[in-house]
Amino acid sequence: MESILSKRVNRNETEIEIGNRKIAAHAFLYSPSTKILFNSIPMRYSIMMQIRFDGKIGFPGGLIDKGENIEFGLNRELKEEIGLEEKFYLDESNYVGSYVTPKLVDHFYVKEYFEKDLERIERGVLEAKDWGGETLGLLRVPVHTLHDNRKPLPAFLLHNFIADARDQLIHSIVDTDVLSESEMNNILVESQQLKDKMVQKL
Amino acid sequence: MESILSKRVNRNETEIEIGNRKIAAHAFLYSPSTKILFNSIPMRYSIMMQIRFDGKIGFPGGLIDKGENIEFGLNRELKEEIGLEEKFYLDESNYVGSYVTPKLVDHFYVKEYFEKDLERIERGVLEAKDWGGETLGLLRVPVHTLHDNRKPLPAFLLHNFIADARDQLIHSIVDTDVLSESEMNNILVESQQLKDKMVQKL
Repeated sequence: MESILSKRVNRNETEIEIGNRKIAAHAFLYSPSTKILFNSIPMRYSIMMQIRFDGKIGFPGGLIDKGENIEFGLNRELKEEIGLEEKFYLDESNYVGSYVTPKLVDHFYVKEYFEKDLERIERGVLEAKDWGGETLGLLRVPVHTLHDNRKPLPAFLLHNFIADARDQLIHSIVDTDVLSESEMNNILVESQQLKDKMVQKL
Repeated sequence: MESILSKRVNRNETEIEIGNRKIAAHAFLYSPSTKILFNSIPMRYSIMMQIRFDGKIGFPGGLIDKGENIEFGLNRELKEEIGLEEKFYLDESNYVGSYVTPKLVDHFYVKEYFEKDLERIERGVLEAKDWGGETLGLLRVPVHTLHDNRKPLPAFLLHNFIADARDQLIHSIVDTDVLSESEMNNILVESQQLKDKMVQKL
């Protein structure tokens, strides 16, 4: 899987690569889900993503100020963007790796919540300072399987994502065992086939 | 603009075309917005769309039951999907036209709210029966202009939309004067250019 995804490195490996790059931190917040679709399909997990001011899909988080502690800056951004309460804040134990692009070093975090807590966090998004401005949408990533074994995730992965967010999503779904690596590989193949069909239609 | 978009017909013109098609109704709910992005960019309007159980972006609404009055069915779906309160319900005066696809006749409605009412409607989405199931996301369509005259709408239009939802969005933005027809034409040209770039990168 790694071969077609961007490389994730450890935080200390990024030190020498920072140069003129901006520093950011983003988070994959999720919970198990007991929701049932059409009275029969278990939704299994809720994974929070958002639509940004630029129309693209990404994870909550943002740029770290110069000299600011990374987790402090991450929680500050999560407070502004999604209204995250202090009791739900993330710490160093939630760090999973960093993504280096030409403009950005993005430190990435994963945290699991109880379902009722994630629902509470979601309701806070619409009360947050940035709702309707920097944050234009709140969404849950579909990881369920519809009737006829059809999955919505391949189509979802064809949306327009910011920077490394699509790869961060794919990595994190496998890291957290929401889907197995082999399930995710099948989804990536199916997503590529859907993409090819879209291109043929152009 | 009509030449590249799907055709919208009047409801009585669809009667002879229904055949085996399912009947649906969807709605473009919007309000003026006083929100300011980055302390300087007016957001101008809030337009509500959602992410569905199949991972695609669409308008709230759904299938009309056999023999059901169309506006009754539309409001029933809006109650289930986004928790719309009765005082905010739509009626025949909000009807703007119907979209006929091989599988579906989709009656389309537009309603303007006060900003505080649309915000209240949005908060209801997360309390609705279908949140986390049929409804996986709540979003506002970006119609603002960033610094350097850059607009997020061309990138937003490259997301994965259900059925005629993308055309319904484009038509309704012009119908409501959120953007002029000439502004929308420029956005469609820019969106096509972005799409061509994405294809070249494949």
